[in-house]
Amino acid sequence: MKLEFVRELVASEKTKIVLLVLDGLGGLPRVAGGLTELETAHTPNLDDLAARGICGLHQPVGFGITPGSGPSHLALFGYDPFEYQVGRGVLSALGIGFELRPLDVAARGNFSLVDEQGLIVDRRAGRIPSAKNEELCALLRRIDLPGVELWVETVKEYRLLLVLRGEGLSPEVEDTDPQAVGVRPLEPVANAPQAKETARLVGQFLDRAGAILVDHHPANMVLLRGFSSRPRWPSFQDVFGLKAAAIASYPMYRGVAQLVGMEALETGPTLRDRFDTLRARWEDYDFFFLHVKRIDSAGEDGDFERKVGLIEEVDGLLPDLLDMRPDVLLVTGDHSTPARLRSHSWHPVPTILWSEHCRPDGVDRFGERACIGGGLGPRIPATELMPLAVANALRLSKFGA
Amino acid sequence: MKLEFVRELVASEKTKIVLLVLDGLGGLPRVAGGLTELETAHTPNLDDLAARGICGLHQPVGFGITPGSGPSHLALFGYDPFEYQVGRGVLSALGIGFELRPLDVAARGNFSLVDEQGLIVDRRAGRIPSAKNEELCALLRRIDLPGVELWVETVKEYRLLLVLRGEGLSPEVEDTDPQAVGVRPLEPVANAPQAKETARLVGQFLDRAGAILVDHHPANMVLLRGFSSRPRWPSFQDVFGLKAAAIASYPMYRGVAQLVGMEALETGPTLRDRFDTLRARWEDYDFFFLHVKRIDSAGEDGDFERKVGLIEEVDGLLPDLLDMRPDVLLVTGDHSTPARLRSHSWHPVPTILWSEHCRPDGVDRFGERACIGGGLGPRIPATELMPLAVANALRLSKFGA
Repeated sequence: MKLEFVRELVASEKTKIVLLVLDGLGGLPRVAGGLTELETAHTPNLDDLAARGICGLHQPVGFGITPGSGPSHLALFGYDPFEYQVGRGVLSALGIGFELRPLDVAARGNFSLVDEQGLIVDRRAGRIPSAKNEELCALLRRIDLPGVELWVETVKEYRLLLVLRGEGLSPEVEDTDPQAVGVRPLEPVANAPQAKETARLVGQFLDRAGAILVDHHPANMVLLRGFSSRPRWPSFQDVFGLKAAAIASYPMYRGVAQLVGMEALETGPTLRDRFDTLRARWEDYDFFFLHVKRIDSAGEDGDFERKVGLIEEVDGLLPDLLDMRPDVLLVTGDHSTPARLRSHSWHPVPTILWSEHCRPDGVDRFGERACIGGGLGPRIPATELMPLAVANALRLSKFGA
Repeated sequence: MKLEFVRELVASEKTKIVLLVLDGLGGLPRVAGGLTELETAHTPNLDDLAARGICGLHQPVGFGITPGSGPSHLALFGYDPFEYQVGRGVLSALGIGFELRPLDVAARGNFSLVDEQGLIVDRRAGRIPSAKNEELCALLRRIDLPGVELWVETVKEYRLLLVLRGEGLSPEVEDTDPQAVGVRPLEPVANAPQAKETARLVGQFLDRAGAILVDHHPANMVLLRGFSSRPRWPSFQDVFGLKAAAIASYPMYRGVAQLVGMEALETGPTLRDRFDTLRARWEDYDFFFLHVKRIDSAGEDGDFERKVGLIEEVDGLLPDLLDMRPDVLLVTGDHSTPARLRSHSWHPVPTILWSEHCRPDGVDRFGERACIGGGLGPRIPATELMPLAVANALRLSKFGA
């Protein structure tokens, strides 16, 4: 459903919606013919919720598409990730919790290695450790450009973030990373007249960076891509009429939630902390996005058993959440992270939507196979879950007479 | 499927299609864990049809969207209700059976209350009874505008219909209803140069209406919105190659059917009457839209038992319909009206498509849960049912060589 359209129908109500995201929830059987992580887990509370709710599997972005965390969360928030794209620079800033201001220009950078002719030998500088990255970023921070403030921040290993802040900047600058070896880094070129000054400043930065790094093999150059500014999108409040809070500890998820106008609440590192924060702030918001990261991490580590255990841990906390009496509870993942693949994947994600007004479907078990037979269907677009949740909260008025 | 595309493939045939719409068919369990209205009903004939046909649930407009009767019927007729929108003025005219001519301009009106400063106090005039409305409309009919004919018609309670007929009118006029209290009604403003004269005439009408109503507290003003003219759409005959008839007694449904070029047949008030009309006119048309309103009314009244009984009544008449030997029979609702919600809702609607050429799917019971497992899927867009019905009537030729 187009956001512009949903917005027209939104009505004011007191009902509360909770979106519980078990990051990387979907899985695969460890061996052919076996059970997935979720199917293996003992989840009496989730099974009971499945029986009382409507189930299905959502497709984060599209058939066969493995999403990153940014697009997959935007989709869950109802924002079509093809229409609402975030530049790599902005994503890097979100990932490390850098608070971009509206007119800042951010770029994702790679430390890289060039030879004596200036040709790129290694785009990732031999994957230097993060500690080395921090050392080099400290050196680059000495660069001073006229009229702008500059940030050079470590992301991880060979990856860094560059942010320019000042008057009259524009993100319409081409990548300097040619994404190939054996060629020179590209010059920063303005895509639009208003970006000429920005491109010139970026050129100055890269010249000085090259001079500073010249003896720091294998990290003697910086390549930049994804120049971007914080997007200006319709907010969650505007679109869905919901005052929304994010309860997440990782910067990336807090950042994506903030991009759509959610407030990122202070919370502790444990799952228990996040549920406590939810209870403490229950009266202050209409919508809560509660994020559980470690299930995805277990999947990425290929640790099937740990992923099973973490799902069971969430199951054990579910009664606390139900005890707060949400009007609508949506339990799902942002994408699948099968331990067997050790990475995000394209598989659809088990989903329960519960409200007093949903139409139960006979599914009485929360698992990939069971959800196929659910009333949401086996491939509901992730972006459609929010309109459904808002409808179940009785917050959408009738379309047409 | 885009209508332009279907149109290209339509072939001439003698086959007949019947679309039987049980208005508001979809429901919800009365209590958690229970059965819906349709699941409760004893429907041996529909169950048998389900077993021989292909089943599923259609989604009238979109995920979470509760449709009004206009959009939901347009969708069943194959017309995407986002693309084919009807103005409120036109919908009001359809609702009371006012036969709009192609160039008429219609607006939906509210009797309302303004204070001595002219500020709106109540947009609905204390919800005056329809009898009072009729009295006031009779007074307003005395208004005479130069060069145009004028109709002022009671819709219901505080709602009225205004129609202007004459040369050179245009519906491009802004609402005068500000949809807020404590402010003045808006002036009728032309959105386009060709609407200037219409806006001026509407302004004159409102001035005189204000003068006539001045002592008729709480209905001393008229607010207008949704200026619109009868849309010019591709007809059902053009798109699907079907000579189509509507057998419905309520003006709204007859009107929407007429908008897509169906002929609205004279029929009596009972269900039996409608089946008799079908039999009497069987040879004259390729397509029949047969509408059963009272199931929706029972839902709106919150009367679960009555809704069950009416579904059973339709089931009892089904053999008569089958006896006429339609080539394709589509049985569904236009939307859900769960007795528990006492209103239209966003839930998908149980559907059976039967023809000699459909591929049965193992569903042998007509009910919300049973249909989830059907071959049409749990969320087929309502607009796709007509192309499927036409295909099953062997009226669509091959796409491509």
